[in-house]
Order: sequence, then C-alpha cells, then structure tokens
Amino acid sequence: MTLLHTIYLLAITAEAMSGAIMGMRRGMDLFGICMLGTVTALGGGTVRDILLGNYPVGWIQHPEFLAFTAGAALVTAFVARYLHHLRMVFLLVDGLGLVAFTVIGCDVALGLGAHPAIVVLAGLITGIFGGLLRDILCNRVPMVLRRELYATVALFTGLLYMTLLWLGVSSNIASVAALVSGFLFRVLAVAFDWRLPTFNRRDIRGLD
Amino acid sequence: MTLLHTIYLLAITAEAMSGAIMGMRRGMDLFGICMLGTVTALGGGTVRDILLGNYPVGWIQHPEFLAFTAGAALVTAFVARYLHHLRMVFLLVDGLGLVAFTVIGCDVALGLGAHPAIVVLAGLITGIFGGLLRDILCNRVPMVLRRELYATVALFTGLLYMTLLWLGVSSNIASVAALVSGFLFRVLAVAFDWRLPTFNRRDIRGLD
Amino acid sequence: MTLLHTIYLLAITAEAMSGAIMGMRRGMDLFGICMLGTVTALGGGTVRDILLGNYPVGWIQHPEFLAFTAGAALVTAFVARYLHHLRMVFLLVDGLGLVAFTVIGCDVALGLGAHPAIVVLAGLITGIFGGLLRDILCNRVPMVLRRELYATVALFTGLLYMTLLWLGVSSNIASVAALVSGFLFRVLAVAFDWRLPTFNRRDIRGLD
Repeated sequence: MTLLHTIYLLAITAEAMSGAIMGMRRGMDLFGICMLGTVTALGGGTVRDILLGNYPVGWIQHPEFLAFTAGAALVTAFVARYLHHLRMVFLLVDGLGLVAFTVIGCDVALGLGAHPAIVVLAGLITGIFGGLLRDILCNRVPMVLRRELYATVALFTGLLYMTLLWLGVSSNIASVAALVSGFLFRVLAVAFDWRLPTFNRRDIRGLD
Repeated sequence: MTLLHTIYLLAITAEAMSGAIMGMRRGMDLFGICMLGTVTALGGGTVRDILLGNYPVGWIQHPEFLAFTAGAALVTAFVARYLHHLRMVFLLVDGLGLVAFTVIGCDVALGLGAHPAIVVLAGLITGIFGGLLRDILCNRVPMVLRRELYATVALFTGLLYMTLLWLGVSSNIASVAALVSGFLFRVLAVAFDWRLPTFNRRDIRGLD
Repeated sequence: MTLLHTIYLLAITAEAMSGAIMGMRRGMDLFGICMLGTVTALGGGTVRDILLGNYPVGWIQHPEFLAFTAGAALVTAFVARYLHHLRMVFLLVDGLGLVAFTVIGCDVALGLGAHPAIVVLAGLITGIFGGLLRDILCNRVPMVLRRELYATVALFTGLLYMTLLWLGVSSNIASVAALVSGFLFRVLAVAFDWRLPTFNRRDIRGLD
C-alpha cells in the first residue's frame, strides 16, 4: 500500500530526527547522533522481527533505509538550531509515525499467521521500541513507561485495526481508519495532557 | 511435567509482581508497570530462545502467558499497599521461580541437543535475565551483577541438574532434586547474607 | 585464516579484561565481573549474529570461548592491582581487537551473501557492540556514542576491506591491509586525541 509506505518513510525520518536531537542533548558526537537516530527509527521494527523470527530483518533487506535515517540525523545535527519553531510539526509527525509503525507491525505479524493478541503486540512493539531503545542508550528510564498516552495509542490503534479486519472491513479501509483514529487519539492526548494513573511511594511502603 | 509447569506459572506471577513493584517505585504509569512486570517474568526465557535460535519464542506460542503476567502486574499496582507484610512470601516465591526458570531453561537447551556448558548457561540466562532487563529499564546497574547469591544459585542448580542426569538419574527425580537443593541454597544465602567477593577501588588504581 | 584467529583470541581476552576492570569500578561481585567481561568480549558478535539470523551464535558453537573470557575476567579481578602500568598495552590490544572484530564481522556477513553496506555495518556492529552493551550494563551512556574515534575506525576498516576486495585484492592481503591501516588509524586517533564534532546545548534550544 503506497500511502502507508510514504507515511513510513516520513515516520522513520521524523523518528531519526527526534533521536538525533536527543543525542545532541546528551553531548554525543556525530557518529552517536547518527546511530541514535537510526536506532530510534528502525529499532522497533528490528525488535519485532527478532522476536517473531521474521528474517531477514527489514533494514538488512533494504539498506537504503539506513542511509535515509543516518542522513536525516546528520542533517538534523547541523540544522537543529533553525528548527526550534518546528516543535509542533515534530510532535505531529511523531504521532503519525507511531500509528503508522503500529499498523505496519500488525501487518507483518498478520502475514506470519500470528495469534490476534500477538498481532496487536507486534504493532505495539513496532510503535514503541525505537524510542525505548533510544532512552536506554541515553541512560534514562524509557519515557514510554512513565508518561503520556503513547503505548496506549499504539494499543488502541492495533486493537481497532484488528477489530475492523475481523468485522470484514477491507485491509485498505481498516488501515486508513486505524491511522486516522489513532492519530486523532494521540493529538487529543497531547492537547489535553491525558495520562494513565501512576502510584505514589506510600503504596509500596514495606516492599522496597 | 505438571509440577514444574505449576511452579512456572507461580514463578512468572511472582516475577511479574516484583517487576510491577519496581515500576511503581520508579513512578511508572499503569502501562509501564504492566510492561515491566511482563519483561521481568518472560524476559529470561525470551533472551534464551533468541540466543539459541529456538523459535517460536515461548509467549508467542502461548499468548495467555502475557495475560497472566500483565494481569498480575495490574492487580499488584492496586493492591500493593496491602502487601507490605508479604515481603517474605515474595522472597520465597522469587527463589522458587529462580530455580524453576533454571531447570526449565536447561530442559529447553537439552531438547535442542546443546553442549552441556550451553545447557547450564541456558538455565542461568533463563533464571537471571528477566531481572537484568527489568533493572536496565529502571536505569540501574543490574542487581544480579552486584550482590547476593542469585546467579550463583542458578549456576549451582543447573550444574547439579546436569550432573544428576549425567549420572543416569531419571529426569523427574533430577529436576526435583535440583529444585529443592537450589531453593534451599537460595534461602540459606538470603538468611545468612552470603556474598561473592567484590573488589575495592584501590585494586584498579591507574586503570581508570 | 590463522593470523586472524590468533588476533581474535587475543582480542576477546583484552576485551574481557577491560570489561572486568569496568565491573570492578562499579562495585560488581565476582559473578558480575565475569559476566561483564564475557558480554564485552562476545556481545558484538552475538548482536551481529542475531541481526543477521546467523545461527548458531558463535559462542554456542564454541563454548570454550566462554571459558576463555570468564577466565580472563576472573584472573583480572585478582591481578588488577598489579596491572596499573599496563594501561598502554591495554589500549593497544583493544585497538587491535577493534579492527580484528571488524574484519571478522565483515567476513561473516560476506559469507552470508549480504549487501556491501550490510557487510560494513556487520563489521561495525561486531567492533562496537560489546563495549556498548558493557556500558548499558554499567548504567552509563555508551562511550562509543560520545567520544574518541572508535566507531569511525571500525567504519574505516570495514570500508577499506570491502574496497580492496572489490578491487580484486586477495582476501588474505585485504584483511592484513585493513587490520594494519585500521590499527594505525586508531593509534593516531588516540595519540592526537582526534574527535568527531559534537554540538552544544544552544543548538537544540526550543526542541527540548
């Protein structure tokens, strides 16, 4: 599907740029910035493929993706100072990337004949593990485990996609509907600062 | 073997609860808590299966394990405040889980016809990598590398199991003997605070 | 090729020792030290094999490598206090290991018929991921992403090796030429403190 493919390229570019900015913030050198951008962009799909045993891994079959992500990170390093008014654009493209990654991840697992629960999980992993690996390399507790409706958006998108397919909706319509709904959910979650519950230290008193 | 399977379910529940408590301590939200519980419970077996090329990975074949671990983590998040007098129970079930994971890991590698050293290592990896991944996601140096006889218990359990099999003892008896001995070793190690040697900063002077 | 094999054994010993010293610095116990040494020495090749789907993973086929690396780490723990004048030797053997790992990683990918870009990347991953995993286990931002020409040396070595092979140079000569050139590059980079550019906080103002 060409639309999904275009969105995918847009998404890995946006993720590579976000990874690059995080690398700059951590004082990484030019290699670290390119590698962090690449891991952020392609890490989710890689973890999914390894867990599913789906070889060859995506970027090994398409090494041009690496040029794409490393190039986007490299450019970001030199133009970041001019991007400060693009924060909102980043947030939107990142949200689009999240839902696109999720739908693509579901499709991969569907193609392998996986159990419906594993299909949704493959979407979730594709959506969130790039950022999770980025945060581990930056030596911090992954953002996705702490705040914002990010993983929840991926879960919602994957569940909606699977439900539509199960209801007999055509694959194209189901993926567009999941993309649009998931993206709107993400935008609303950011706009209204929706969060999942957390717990306070008193709740675990005596279990430390 | 039904006993081992029952202990396994008990063990992944205990590990998921311990992961959930760690996630609460780090201020994770409900998704992070469920994911950390699941990684703690199923991470060791997953790393083992990926290293051995043993596909499909356990929980992909049995997605119900995921419901089990995420459910245990979810419940833990809401009842943790009532669990503070259960510390000792946790420690015991965690010790049982460690030795059960080890014996199960050995069995998987045995089934693949691996070298005896790899069999013991597969047991060790199954026993300790869940907690190791949990600690990485919590942004701290893995506990298993620093303190307590934890990995040592897994190594002892695996070595004893393999020795008994090598001596011609039946698989059932060998696994029960390894479980009981390993569990006792762990309980004694905790009770008497047994530790492996560490080294002090003076020992590495000039090599920093 | 026997020369490369000898250098490989030297290299995993040196890497295991460097991992052990890092583990001692972090207050790890004897198990942690041995495991960190082993991960540092064998982690790069393991990540490469998993990404390429190249099973069985090296040390599973050759468990004697594990005895080698764990043994080197164990010995290091007890003799580290006498090694402080060997800092320069470590640095040289580590540089040799880096280029040897890179050439070996390229050879593995070549043997699988991978795309030239993936061959160079397989060399890079083999060269740097041991140290990267070591730093993650030590809870710090991987050194290779931040400073020194380390990854750059691996990239240079892999690119030179592939260029020579592409020009029709025999495999033996190409690997020796890549080893020698890469090693000299590394020595010069350390001696003159060559670095890749980093960026300052002002460059990412408004993107935090």
